[in-house]
Amino acid sequence: MEARTLLETWRARLGPELDGVIDFWTRHSHDAEHGGFFSCLGRDGSVYDDVKYVWLQGRQVWVYARLYRTVPRFRRPELLEAARAGGEFLLHFARVGTESHKAAFALSRDGRPAKVQRSIYSECFCALGLDELGRTTGESRYRREAQVLLDAVVHWVREDPTELGRPPLAGAVPHEPLAVPMMLLCLAEQLGMGTGGQLAELEQWCAQRLLSHLQRDGSVVLENVSEDGKELPGCLGRQQNPGHALEAGWFLLRYAQRQGDSALAAQVIQGFMVQPFRAGWDPEHGGLFAFQDVDGLCPTQLEWSMKLWWPHVEAMVAFLAAYAHSRDPALLHLFHQVAEYTFQRFRDPAHGEWFGYLARDGTVALSIKGGPFKGCFHVPRALHMCEELVEQLLQEP
Amino acid sequence: MEARTLLETWRARLGPELDGVIDFWTRHSHDAEHGGFFSCLGRDGSVYDDVKYVWLQGRQVWVYARLYRTVPRFRRPELLEAARAGGEFLLHFARVGTESHKAAFALSRDGRPAKVQRSIYSECFCALGLDELGRTTGESRYRREAQVLLDAVVHWVREDPTELGRPPLAGAVPHEPLAVPMMLLCLAEQLGMGTGGQLAELEQWCAQRLLSHLQRDGSVVLENVSEDGKELPGCLGRQQNPGHALEAGWFLLRYAQRQGDSALAAQVIQGFMVQPFRAGWDPEHGGLFAFQDVDGLCPTQLEWSMKLWWPHVEAMVAFLAAYAHSRDPALLHLFHQVAEYTFQRFRDPAHGEWFGYLARDGTVALSIKGGPFKGCFHVPRALHMCEELVEQLLQEP
Repeated sequence: MEARTLLETWRARLGPELDGVIDFWTRHSHDAEHGGFFSCLGRDGSVYDDVKYVWLQGRQVWVYARLYRTVPRFRRPELLEAARAGGEFLLHFARVGTESHKAAFALSRDGRPAKVQRSIYSECFCALGLDELGRTTGESRYRREAQVLLDAVVHWVREDPTELGRPPLAGAVPHEPLAVPMMLLCLAEQLGMGTGGQLAELEQWCAQRLLSHLQRDGSVVLENVSEDGKELPGCLGRQQNPGHALEAGWFLLRYAQRQGDSALAAQVIQGFMVQPFRAGWDPEHGGLFAFQDVDGLCPTQLEWSMKLWWPHVEAMVAFLAAYAHSRDPALLHLFHQVAEYTFQRFRDPAHGEWFGYLARDGTVALSIKGGPFKGCFHVPRALHMCEELVEQLLQEP
Repeated sequence: MEARTLLETWRARLGPELDGVIDFWTRHSHDAEHGGFFSCLGRDGSVYDDVKYVWLQGRQVWVYARLYRTVPRFRRPELLEAARAGGEFLLHFARVGTESHKAAFALSRDGRPAKVQRSIYSECFCALGLDELGRTTGESRYRREAQVLLDAVVHWVREDPTELGRPPLAGAVPHEPLAVPMMLLCLAEQLGMGTGGQLAELEQWCAQRLLSHLQRDGSVVLENVSEDGKELPGCLGRQQNPGHALEAGWFLLRYAQRQGDSALAAQVIQGFMVQPFRAGWDPEHGGLFAFQDVDGLCPTQLEWSMKLWWPHVEAMVAFLAAYAHSRDPALLHLFHQVAEYTFQRFRDPAHGEWFGYLARDGTVALSIKGGPFKGCFHVPRALHMCEELVEQLLQEP
């Protein structure tokens, strides 16, 4: 198919799909009584559990606020109101105590802490959502809290992790998960917008760290490397996660574009996108594996061969952004390949939103639309970004 | 098939299978340099990671020591020597500090702590293995440490969990997982053997607690109940785990037999074995689901529909023990049904030992023979117990 025709086909699909997805979450996930969002939603949107996951609260605030701020057709009062109710819920309840910056991982419906993880992601997704809400509403208190949380996370990652509460253990292998610099690069872009490069040093640090995960002469992206950027022994060192590589890929590509660094952009497209996609694509059934072992051994994650929604939508964003950058038609065809699989397998036209978890053969393994790790985020973010990219490409003469 | 013929068929299969399984572990898992056992073994037995998991160290010590002590054909010096090396490894390295009773969850190959869980199971499996090793060798220091660990665990469970390190959280739902009283009942039987009922009170407490998981007029075994034995709301409250119910079932049946309580035995066979088996058996592909929701909703565990090895071998033990107790031929046929599926699907005649993780349709999803949660335990324990039960039944006139 010719590029323009293909882009027009996708323009016709992406917008209506985004509308349907946002409609699903606005109809089913709002907690009118306590604020915040239910994320445990069954196939038809019914709430099967009322635990509130902080990652998913922060992410949904971001999606609503970003769409309200940047997409005219989503400038609807009820979307802003729900984003605000989510933001207020986080301001009141996310932090476990007033003394600490630690945020809970899970809260009861009315906001009491139910579970705390010894990692950084709850704080990160709070900061992401609150910063965007601050930009959308113009109210500074949201962005103030986002900055406080980012500062705490950067302190934990780069200076002193004590407050996270992980006991120091003599036999633990110090390592850096790809997700840490990836998440921080995402936040540096979000909180740095319009600040004239105040977060430039953090961005640069993140990019450098991410590139150290590109190992074996640039042929693999390892999920975990040593703190000085070397390959590690054992399962930990051999782990690959194609979805993470692709997501980090488009974060890095945007960074390279901000820097005007075309050599970096080309390295990222090849190393973090094309190569992990080719290695991670199931030759038998299609779709991206959730986990791999870089030496081809069997991963220990039970779900390694399952097809999860988020790596696929991240791949859509990655390849469309890469095509928009380079205009290499091979990248547009990779977008088309993954988007076709994704739209065919994950959508649920009967009830709206997307399935999240398929068996290796592509049949639905879990019929839930939301759960502890799936909420209103990856699907609408990807549809929105792809719609925007397609529009830009089609507006060119 | 007539009962005697069926038992003879299984006698011919169980013994050789147990021999092959033990052969696999003795050939591939012993660490001659540091003591203890590798458990991360690929399909052919090759070591793909050298992390040592304390659960699996304790369990393998138990299997080797028990077989050496009770089965004449396993009274081989190399088995005892390996059990001892595993026991010494645990005595030296399992506890995280001399001040605390907490044992690590994972150790480096040379015994340095790599991961600590805020639960009781590492300590429990250490106690299980060390007690059996003490019985086998006659050396009291192993059983002394087992008693110290059991006392610590009982203190954490029944009096004060502070040392486990879980932060008290206002929104956390206090609940009792089925695994806690199940594990303690197993330990009470192990450490209580020959003590004239010194652990009788603990056994009784465990049995009572386990029975409180039988809810909705005895029609379901819930994985989690409130601390006063009531059903809980949400996913937590609706969770069912057929394998746990069946394993708890045979622990409870043995308890009922020790008590001479035939009404309890009948209740347990129906409530913890027959009913969870019928509810948990996949009508489409056969095999037991890993997790279920008691209201028929979709579980949130990604592996809910996978077929794991251990529920199947626990079901074999449960139904054969139940048949030996009641002589109800229906129970022997349930044994036969699950054992046929299990032998067909999980065995690997090409390389020995069993696969652990099948997709819903019964195809092998992970080719590993051991990993962070699968070692030398469920398969040989079940084969040994079934062989013993079959022999006893066939010796009757």
